[in-house]
Amino acid sequence: MKKVLIANRGEIAVRIIRACKELDIQSVAVYSEADRDALHVQLADEAYCIGPKLSSESYLKISSILSVAQKTGCDGIHPGYGFLAENASFAEACEDAGITFIGPTSDAIKMMGIKDIAKDSMIKAGVPTVPGSVGIVADAAEAAEVAKGIGYPVIIKATAGGGGKGIRVARTEEELIKGVQITQKEAAAAFGNPGVYLEKFIEDFRHCEIQILADNYGNTIHLGERDCTVQRRMQKLVEEAPSPALSEERRVEMGEAAVKAALACGYRGAGTVEFIFDYHEDKFYFMEMNTRIQVEHPVTEMITGIDLVQQQLKIASGEKLVYKQEDVKVNGWAMECRINAENPSKNFMPSPGKVEDYIAPGGYGVRIDSAMYPGYSIPPFYDSMVAKLIVHADTREEAIAKMKRALGEFIVEGPGIQTTIPFHAKLMDHEVFKKGDFNTKFLEENDVMNS
Amino acid sequence: MKKVLIANRGEIAVRIIRACKELDIQSVAVYSEADRDALHVQLADEAYCIGPKLSSESYLKISSILSVAQKTGCDGIHPGYGFLAENASFAEACEDAGITFIGPTSDAIKMMGIKDIAKDSMIKAGVPTVPGSVGIVADAAEAAEVAKGIGYPVIIKATAGGGGKGIRVARTEEELIKGVQITQKEAAAAFGNPGVYLEKFIEDFRHCEIQILADNYGNTIHLGERDCTVQRRMQKLVEEAPSPALSEERRVEMGEAAVKAALACGYRGAGTVEFIFDYHEDKFYFMEMNTRIQVEHPVTEMITGIDLVQQQLKIASGEKLVYKQEDVKVNGWAMECRINAENPSKNFMPSPGKVEDYIAPGGYGVRIDSAMYPGYSIPPFYDSMVAKLIVHADTREEAIAKMKRALGEFIVEGPGIQTTIPFHAKLMDHEVFKKGDFNTKFLEENDVMNS
Repeated sequence: MKKVLIANRGEIAVRIIRACKELDIQSVAVYSEADRDALHVQLADEAYCIGPKLSSESYLKISSILSVAQKTGCDGIHPGYGFLAENASFAEACEDAGITFIGPTSDAIKMMGIKDIAKDSMIKAGVPTVPGSVGIVADAAEAAEVAKGIGYPVIIKATAGGGGKGIRVARTEEELIKGVQITQKEAAAAFGNPGVYLEKFIEDFRHCEIQILADNYGNTIHLGERDCTVQRRMQKLVEEAPSPALSEERRVEMGEAAVKAALACGYRGAGTVEFIFDYHEDKFYFMEMNTRIQVEHPVTEMITGIDLVQQQLKIASGEKLVYKQEDVKVNGWAMECRINAENPSKNFMPSPGKVEDYIAPGGYGVRIDSAMYPGYSIPPFYDSMVAKLIVHADTREEAIAKMKRALGEFIVEGPGIQTTIPFHAKLMDHEVFKKGDFNTKFLEENDVMNS
Repeated sequence: MKKVLIANRGEIAVRIIRACKELDIQSVAVYSEADRDALHVQLADEAYCIGPKLSSESYLKISSILSVAQKTGCDGIHPGYGFLAENASFAEACEDAGITFIGPTSDAIKMMGIKDIAKDSMIKAGVPTVPGSVGIVADAAEAAEVAKGIGYPVIIKATAGGGGKGIRVARTEEELIKGVQITQKEAAAAFGNPGVYLEKFIEDFRHCEIQILADNYGNTIHLGERDCTVQRRMQKLVEEAPSPALSEERRVEMGEAAVKAALACGYRGAGTVEFIFDYHEDKFYFMEMNTRIQVEHPVTEMITGIDLVQQQLKIASGEKLVYKQEDVKVNGWAMECRINAENPSKNFMPSPGKVEDYIAPGGYGVRIDSAMYPGYSIPPFYDSMVAKLIVHADTREEAIAKMKRALGEFIVEGPGIQTTIPFHAKLMDHEVFKKGDFNTKFLEENDVMNS
């Protein structure tokens, strides 16, 4: 691979450009009119405007992106995460245009994108899944029948949803009937697919996920777990690796299950198999597979020493994986805080603005993946995540101390800007968080900002 | 240890404050009038002005520093490097005041500070040394006699010098006689000690050094070597670890020799034993011991995973070393570029100024230890090093690629400012450097800026 177009923006576009440079691959950035001054535009070897600020007219516009790739002679396109990353049509369009889509095949994206089909194939592959409906439910009546069988509470999931979107909990038959109808309607509007399926709702769980790497020659390995239990409205805020909750036995089993999942869909590249970990029962269940690089991939890089984005590029170039499962060694503890332009004291309301003062933390064991620089105006049109602060230390306790130190140094100030930095600083001092003994309801049940 | 005064400025003061914060130790900064806006002043828990811009009236003023330490109730003082770090009187004054000097005993500093005595003790301890005079030479006549025995060229070294200062090469008896007289005069003026000694001059060598850690309980280990062969006028510019020139056999011997050297002076804390590596003969010789943390300590941290400044603080607190020699594992390759406010196109002329634009590189495997921030005015009164850029990768080739990528992102601009960033960028592309096959004359013999 000689030249790669990065079909994304923000910190992940910067991350991919860096990997390209380190591998001596030319990088081509694309940007919307709102992103003329963005860091990824400055860092790439070439950069082209592909449309106005609206994502649907720029970062989601397949024809414009492919046109730039073809005109500039790119042999690969990296989709990052979000936008077109899990869009099978985009992967297909790349395939048709003779440009390598840096990710899995469009078939694998499709299979994992339709959640009830993905779940069925997991059952066939022997990956543990949560009890629920067999495929989608036709209507509320069928849903009520299924729910009787598995018992309340249940969770209604849009088959085309994912990433915390298109799901709803029902604790009674009344809630279920209403919920199925609403979710079907919402899913039709949001994903163009009204299908929903049911699962037993596990109340108390941790979100654990396994990083996968697979090449084109049948070699599939996993790189251990990440724990992403600190969530607000199903959006991850802090990720760490390893998980403070998994036993060594469960860790090994989860890794093996993830490899089975990847093999079941003929996976290629970097992907993540997400699991619900029911720690009361010490059991885990398949949640979904994300067929792309994830926001939280750095924590895995820090503890394994394996550069996941470089691996994506190498695999897409047709290289064989140089790592075997036994080469993957976990070293120490890594943690990532998502720095969002949001006001944590006002219900995490988006609060972008001009970054007048910017001092990023540094020193040993501190990594910054940021899209900001002094003088940068954060556009209000996209995801509010503007940086990731990642630390690596020997133990969880030391990682928390380092994160606290680094957050204390991090200055992002300017008119209108608020960030999640004060939230994370509070969190690092929170006794429950420090103990590591919590579930995905932690932020609902604890008022971290006023602790 | 509960509260530590940092008797230094710049990036090393920031480095030490970070380690204190991570260990939950209160930090007290001191600063000259020229450093009111310095980063270390902003980051420390407390900060006190100790005098005007001249180092002799501030950072070298023992009484002022001790006075702040006592008034603020510090139980330790960290001297960093430079300034008072290898001043035995300062260490003694701390000892007398009942404040822990975070470093070796004043006796060890004295012994290693007087180079001919240090060398004698190395000979007794069985550490290889360069053939030369036994102790100091009385005068030029005695020097000529010694030189006849060992053969020209010889090197004249001030016994109170070190770090590349107070040394001179003589290739003929005439040069020697003149050289001894000048060096004696200069040494008397610079170090208050006119003593010089002679050594056989090894023309082609690499500078290798071994990092030492020793606690108060007789446990002394080494953390492998650093290669600091890229020097300009005996000042290091790039350091890496491991060394591309040492065989595994020589590496093991050098580590053992360094431990012997540390034991010979009853060493405690972090220290470095520097060696001349004669690669033609595949032999190494003791050069000197630096009884302090070194500028280039991060490369060792990156490949061993051991935080050296935290270790200094722990050892000074009376903790036992938790690492045994066999626990020290070297992982990958690390490299450091010293970012100096100097103009590499104008003979490295100091070029400080106001940092109006500052964007530090980030991402995986990149570490920044910097004293700069956007808007910071670099004062012209101190050492010109303003940041260190450190990278870590699997191999030397990958480390160079990463360094090149990171240098490309690094922006330090403002009125009057020039930095060594363009020099390092050129160096990373230099064929001789990339091959790793060079000696300390590399920069004399290669015009890197015009390559």
